[in-house]
Amino acid sequence: MPATPIAPLDETAMVASRSRLDRLTKPPGSLGRLESLATLLSGITGDPVPRVDHPAIVVFAADHGVARRGVSAYPSEVTAEMVANFVGGGAAVNALARVAGAIVVAVDVGVAGPIPQPARTAPDGGARLVSARVAGGTRDITVEAAMTPEECEAAIEVGRSIVAQEIAAGANVVAVGEMGIGNTTAASALVAALTGASPAAVTGRGTGLDDQALARKVRLIEAAIERHRPDAAAPLAVLAGLGGLEIAALVGAILACTESRVPVVLDGFITGAAALVAAAIAPGAEARMIASHRSPEPGHGLALERLGLEPLLHLQLRLGEASGAALALPIVRAAGAIVAEMATFEGAGVSGRSGGPARQPSARSGRLGD
Amino acid sequence: MPATPIAPLDETAMVASRSRLDRLTKPPGSLGRLESLATLLSGITGDPVPRVDHPAIVVFAADHGVARRGVSAYPSEVTAEMVANFVGGGAAVNALARVAGAIVVAVDVGVAGPIPQPARTAPDGGARLVSARVAGGTRDITVEAAMTPEECEAAIEVGRSIVAQEIAAGANVVAVGEMGIGNTTAASALVAALTGASPAAVTGRGTGLDDQALARKVRLIEAAIERHRPDAAAPLAVLAGLGGLEIAALVGAILACTESRVPVVLDGFITGAAALVAAAIAPGAEARMIASHRSPEPGHGLALERLGLEPLLHLQLRLGEASGAALALPIVRAAGAIVAEMATFEGAGVSGRSGGPARQPSARSGRLGD
Repeated sequence: MPATPIAPLDETAMVASRSRLDRLTKPPGSLGRLESLATLLSGITGDPVPRVDHPAIVVFAADHGVARRGVSAYPSEVTAEMVANFVGGGAAVNALARVAGAIVVAVDVGVAGPIPQPARTAPDGGARLVSARVAGGTRDITVEAAMTPEECEAAIEVGRSIVAQEIAAGANVVAVGEMGIGNTTAASALVAALTGASPAAVTGRGTGLDDQALARKVRLIEAAIERHRPDAAAPLAVLAGLGGLEIAALVGAILACTESRVPVVLDGFITGAAALVAAAIAPGAEARMIASHRSPEPGHGLALERLGLEPLLHLQLRLGEASGAALALPIVRAAGAIVAEMATFEGAGVSGRSGGPARQPSARSGRLGD
Repeated sequence: MPATPIAPLDETAMVASRSRLDRLTKPPGSLGRLESLATLLSGITGDPVPRVDHPAIVVFAADHGVARRGVSAYPSEVTAEMVANFVGGGAAVNALARVAGAIVVAVDVGVAGPIPQPARTAPDGGARLVSARVAGGTRDITVEAAMTPEECEAAIEVGRSIVAQEIAAGANVVAVGEMGIGNTTAASALVAALTGASPAAVTGRGTGLDDQALARKVRLIEAAIERHRPDAAAPLAVLAGLGGLEIAALVGAILACTESRVPVVLDGFITGAAALVAAAIAPGAEARMIASHRSPEPGHGLALERLGLEPLLHLQLRLGEASGAALALPIVRAAGAIVAEMATFEGAGVSGRSGGPARQPSARSGRLGD
C-alpha cells in the first residue's frame, strides 16, 4: 500500500484566497481564524472559492481484544449496540449531523458480535450502515499483534474505499470518527510508539476510568510497547501491532481525503492517533487535515502538536464517534461561505479605509478600487 | 425604564436537564461544554428539553459623533453602506446566518445619512430592514453627552420592541450584534466607566488603528470620562453620556430576551459593553446570556470576566455585526439537539458501565436501569 505522495498546498489558490478575503466587506483579517481556515481550504482543494457545502460524516467501528483486560468503563458489547444506535439515529453524532446538515455513514470494519436491530429509529432517520468487517475485532495487544499485516491493509482499504465512494457521491468535506470500546488504549499505545512519549504521559481516563483503572491501563500499554518494540519509522507495522481495525480504516479514510484534495475534519484522540499514522505513511498529509477540537486526553494534545494542527474548538469533548468533527463542520462551512457569498467593497458600494495605507480609494469618490 | 427583576435560572429544569443528559447514550459528561450549555438553556427557558431551533439575528446600526475625531480606520458613511450590504445579503453576517439557518434583521436606530439601495442582492436574499431611527447618530462624547436621556430610553425601547416582535414571530434564540463606525470608542468608554478600569487598559485597535491613532483614541476616551465623570451606580446615565444609539438598543434587546426567558447570544466587544450595561440595570440578567466568542479587543475580555461569562469560541474574530454570535448559533443549537434528539441507554438498548458506581445495571443482563 504505497501511499501517493502528498502534494504541498496549492500556493496559487491560497494567494488568490487571501487577495479575495482582503477585498470583502470587512476590515482585513477581522474574521480571524475563519479567514485562515478559508485560505487553508483553498490550499487543500486548489480552488480560490472552495466548496465545502456537502459534508459527509464517516464513523468506523471495531472491537479491541485488549478490552477484556478492563481498560474501559464499558463492556465490549457497547460497540455493536452503539452502531445500532447510529443506525437508529439516536446517538450524539446523529443529532450533531442534523445541525450540520451532514449525512452519517457507520462502517462496521471489525465489530465482535452481530449488530443488533436499532431499538427505535428517529423521525429524521439515522446512519447508513456499511458492513465491511475485516475481522471480529483485534487481538489483545498485550500478548500479540492486534492485526496481521493483511488485516491491517484490508482495514485501511475499507477506509479508503468508503471515502472514495462518498466523494464520488458528492461529498466535498469529510468528517471522520470512530466507535470502539477499548480504543483509547490502542490510540495511546500508537501515540506513545510514534512520538516516543511515555505511556503514562499520553494515557488518559477514556470514557471515565478511576485512578486505579487508569494505572492498570498505563501498565498494559507499557507491556504492549515492551512486547512489540515498535519502530516509528515503520508506521504500518506499528499500526498492525498496536492499533485497531477502525483506526486502520481511519488512516485509509484520511489518506483518501488528502490524496483527493478533499478537506478532512478530524475528531478527537483516536482520530488524532490515526492522523499521526497517516502523516507517518504519507508525510505532508498533515497539512491537509483540519483539527476540530482538542479533547482532555493527554495524548490528543501531543498528537495535534506533532501534526502542527491547531484545533478549532476547545469544548472539553471526549466522546468520539465524530461528535467533535460534526460540531466543527458548520465552522468549516462558514469559512467557505464567507469567500463564496460575501460582497467585495466595490461590488457592494462600501467605502474603504479613510487614508489608511493598505486600501487606498481609487478615482471614484472614496470607493475602494479593485 | 425600571427593568423587570430577572429571576434566577430555573433550578428544577436544570436538575431535570442534568439527569436526562446522564441517561443519554454517551459517557456522563463526555460532551463537555455542550452539556453545560444544554443545562444553561434549560435554566434560561425553564424547559428540560429547551428549543433553540428558530434563531433570529438582530443587528443594530447607528453612527457616532466621536467618529469625526478619527477614531476609526473607516469613514462614517460605511455605517449606512454596510446596512445596505446587510439588506443586499453580501455581508459576513448574511453568509454566516445562512450556515446557521437564521434570519437577519437590520435595525437603523441612528444612522447619520440615508441608507443607500443595495448595489446588488444575493440570490438567497438579505436582511429585513427596520427603520427605527431615534436620531441621526450620537453627539461627540468628548464635548457633550452622546444622547439625551429621552433618546437613550427611546433607543432601548427600539431594541426591546424589535426583539419582542421576533420572539412573538417564533424566534426561540436571539443573536445580537451591531454596526457603527466609531463604536469601539463608545464601548471602551462604557467598559472603563462601568468597571473602573483605565481607558488605556480597555481600548484596542478596533477595525485596525495604528499606534498613533490608538494613542489618540485612548486620550479621547480619557477626555470623555473626565468630562462626564460617570457613576457606575447609574448605568442609564453612563449609557446616555458615553454610549451609542445601537448600544442602547442592544441593551434593550438583551433585557427583552432575559425577561422573556429566551437565550440571547452575545457577539463581540460592543455587544459585551451593552451586556455590562444591561446587567448593571438588571442584576441577574448576565446569568441568562451566552457569550459567543472573545475578541482581541482588551475591553471584551474584561467585560466577559465581570459578567462571569465563558465564551464558546476563541477564533480571533473582531468584525462585529453579530458575526461571532452567528458562528456560535450552530453550537447553541447542537446543545439543544443533543437533549431533544439523543436516545437514552434504555431506549436504545445500549449497555451501561461495567460495574461502575454511577449507573448500575438493573435486572436485564447488564442493561442500564432508568
